[in-house]
Order: sequence, then structure tokens, then C-alpha cells
Amino acid sequence: MKKVMVHITLKAGVLDPQGKAIQHSLHALGYTEVEDARVGKMIELQVEEGPELETRITEMCDKLLANPVIENYQFTIEEAVC
Amino acid sequence: MKKVMVHITLKAGVLDPQGKAIQHSLHALGYTEVEDARVGKMIELQVEEGPELETRITEMCDKLLANPVIENYQFTIEEAVC
Repeated sequence: MKKVMVHITLKAGVLDPQGKAIQHSLHALGYTEVEDARVGKMIELQVEEGPELETRITEMCDKLLANPVIENYQFTIEEAVC
Repeated sequence: MKKVMVHITLKAGVLDPQGKAIQHSLHALGYTEVEDARVGKMIELQVEEGPELETRITEMCDKLLANPVIENYQFTIEEAVC
């Protein structure tokens, strides 16, 4: 069994209203040192080992997990700890 | 300027309907090797350097960024690349 961590972030230049809302809220709470906030997603998959795992994960990202038009993704594959 | 990466995940035992939806969709697409999926958040902050940065980030997480009742968080602080 493998643990796959997929990190999905918005591409540079894509507006991030959720990040802006977080930044404004932090300012309102007094944390004015925060100059920018951007929000991304993290998806943890437990995957049965098989051939071409990396290719299949890339396909999953392109087809379902991320929107390649506006998002970048990276993933790491490690041994799952049971 | 520092770059702070906050990783927020649901605590073990907390139901994750979004993760379940992803798992079912992956199965429907033929990726039946995926046995579990859990979704978390990643927040990237650009923060002006100041005293007690780590304490202030912990406060931000507890007050606004994460829900400590159902979520765990971790963060890393590194030098921002401009």
C-alpha cells in the first residue's frame, strides 16, 4: 500500500478570493504582518501498489483531482504506514 | 519576508464526505486501486518578519485558519523567494 500526497495550488496570476478573505480576516484580528494568503488543496490517497502507479496518479490529477487550466499540482508517493 | 506553509488535515475519525466523493469518482473512472481519499487544506502566507513569528502563526491557526476541534495543523516557515 502506498500513500500518495497530492498538493494542488492555483497558478500564479489566478485570482484567489478565498485567500484574500483570509488575509483580510487576519488583518482584522491584528495580524497586519500577513501580506498575502493563497489557498490550495491537499489530497491524501491510499493506493494499492500496481504497475505504472506514477502514470496513473498523473492521469487522476489531470482528469479529476486538479483543473490543469488554472491549477498546478505536485505529488509524492511514499510507503503507507499502517 | 517569510513564506509560511500551513497544512490542515481532518483529525482521524472525522468523516470526510469530500474525500469519499473523490474516491467514488476515481473508482467510476476505473482507478479502483484507490482505497481511501482524504482532503485537506494548504494555506501559503507571505509574512513580514517580526518577533515571535512562530507564536503568532500558531495563534492565527487556532483562531482563524483551522478548527482545532476537528482539524490538525502543521506549519513550516521558510525564507520567501521574491
